[in-house]
Amino acid sequence: MTFDPDSLRYDDRGLLPAIAQDAETSEVLMLAWMNADAVRQTLAERRVVYWSRSRAAFWRKGDTSGHIQELVDLRFDCDRDCLLLQVRQTGPACHTGRRSCFYTAVREGAEVELSKPL
Amino acid sequence: MTFDPDSLRYDDRGLLPAIAQDAETSEVLMLAWMNADAVRQTLAERRVVYWSRSRAAFWRKGDTSGHIQELVDLRFDCDRDCLLLQVRQTGPACHTGRRSCFYTAVREGAEVELSKPL
Repeated sequence: MTFDPDSLRYDDRGLLPAIAQDAETSEVLMLAWMNADAVRQTLAERRVVYWSRSRAAFWRKGDTSGHIQELVDLRFDCDRDCLLLQVRQTGPACHTGRRSCFYTAVREGAEVELSKPL
Repeated sequence: MTFDPDSLRYDDRGLLPAIAQDAETSEVLMLAWMNADAVRQTLAERRVVYWSRSRAAFWRKGDTSGHIQELVDLRFDCDRDCLLLQVRQTGPACHTGRRSCFYTAVREGAEVELSKPL
């Protein structure tokens, strides 16, 4: 069946969440947002393009930082309202310089920092 | 630093996305939503409780199906607006009977089904 980005289910802002996962280690790196055009661009370029909600603009990840995400596999869920992007990440995914944005855990009621900037 | 569920950043519906990942295999299983009380319940019970947007009610995953998610680690991202739940999943995470909700990939422009119901 041919895939049509418009067949995904976007929220009232025209967006859906996209999880980026390291294609080799399976580490979850970050979550950001896409609209249908960002999905199209990501598939066409094989490089991840998000929609920045704060800047209201396309966000070709790595254009400024060099920390690009090469697309290995794009998947969507049973409700067609969330994406899983398996990527080859250059450098850190997180703007803090850490590999993953999920570097804080809650353990015994306290915030625990799991990693430092690379 | 003590963790306060109210210190997370929720959207205008009072919700944030929560990614569930298999704590052993690192497979991404699903994405659902939580409000601050769902975060509190999940930490208190060490069992994942979402907020069902369609039913507008707490969703103690597995109460009906038996497919519970035991919490192994709860993490949040640099923006404090997304959770990563590492879980021990009983049975399939997906309501279709598949281990993961992300069972459809886009390859060469076509939808490809990666797994069948267990």
